[in-house]
Amino acid sequence: MNNGDVPDIVIHRLPLYLRALDQMAENGQLVTSSQELGQRLAISSAQIRKDLSHFGEFGKQGTGYDIEFLRAQLRRILQVDESWSMALVGAGALGHALVNYGGFRQRNFHIDAVFDNDATKIGTMMEQLRVEDQRYIPERVRELEIYIGVIAAPASVAQAVADMLVQGGVRAILCYAPITLSLPEDIAVEYIDPLLALQSMTYYIHKRQLIIDN
Amino acid sequence: MNNGDVPDIVIHRLPLYLRALDQMAENGQLVTSSQELGQRLAISSAQIRKDLSHFGEFGKQGTGYDIEFLRAQLRRILQVDESWSMALVGAGALGHALVNYGGFRQRNFHIDAVFDNDATKIGTMMEQLRVEDQRYIPERVRELEIYIGVIAAPASVAQAVADMLVQGGVRAILCYAPITLSLPEDIAVEYIDPLLALQSMTYYIHKRQLIIDN
Repeated sequence: MNNGDVPDIVIHRLPLYLRALDQMAENGQLVTSSQELGQRLAISSAQIRKDLSHFGEFGKQGTGYDIEFLRAQLRRILQVDESWSMALVGAGALGHALVNYGGFRQRNFHIDAVFDNDATKIGTMMEQLRVEDQRYIPERVRELEIYIGVIAAPASVAQAVADMLVQGGVRAILCYAPITLSLPEDIAVEYIDPLLALQSMTYYIHKRQLIIDN
Repeated sequence: MNNGDVPDIVIHRLPLYLRALDQMAENGQLVTSSQELGQRLAISSAQIRKDLSHFGEFGKQGTGYDIEFLRAQLRRILQVDESWSMALVGAGALGHALVNYGGFRQRNFHIDAVFDNDATKIGTMMEQLRVEDQRYIPERVRELEIYIGVIAAPASVAQAVADMLVQGGVRAILCYAPITLSLPEDIAVEYIDPLLALQSMTYYIHKRQLIIDN
């Protein structure tokens, strides 16, 4: 068992496995196989076995995986058993959707502070949270011991906001702004930009010549 | 120039290049290099040159890339010069954020229909769109000649919604529901799930031992 140098791409597939196992557990299923997981996720069963083998031996030959056990192991590896506190920057429509998203709480992620730079939003309530002035991000994030920042602010301010989050001690940033941030190497960052996804799909729609009009 | 079998991962990087070039153009910049692009995107310059070489010769030795020319080429390759019509399913908080997102319109993507199965939402207005009953997805999507579906509905109904979108002739689905859809092979699909991103970052926060308390 060597967690030292597991490839990034493997780490990024583990949450996908966990999500599928959670769904199976919700349906009352107790045991699965790499074949079933693979079929559900469109990943080869060999790949799944190889990915999991980085962390130990989780299945028994011929009997498959105990779903509860594998879920517990994946949660432990990913460190998602503990509760994670997040700071959200941006109290617009996307910020509202994120604060209202029940999936975060269900999975132990909690938005514990919201910031904006718009005077008409500062001081207003979003669910139980009062929107704070984003100039206080560094001190407030440090005070609340928050390690994850979520940027739902416009691209034009995203870098400045990211710098303030890092100043406050944040170790990971989930960025919805359509920009690539410049960050210290030890800060984890993930991007969510629906346009990047859409713009690769349009390539495939066209390539497959599925639209008749050309 | 051989577009026949460009790897998926290359296609997925092109929108990222286009986004960076758009930003440079907005700042009035005329010329760039694979080095500058690479630095901005944390991708090696050799990788960028190799990716672009799948589609032709876009830069001149020693003078770099003409930004306007390269943007036009990437837009052509990705087929994003034309206007794309989208059907949104889910009129909740996320649906509202998506309908309000200016980035779609700026990049030629337009939400032209919104569906939900909640009787209290059907018939209400979201911006200029009337929320329609999702049972009519197949016929309305076909009538409006929409090729892209966006699922912002709960996981429990996402597969049924996806099936209706495909029935209506949709060729690509952007899925925000935390589920892996089962779809015909010729349907392009992309997923957006912030929990998958968060759950890989928590691994790295912990691995880097950046939190003192263990």
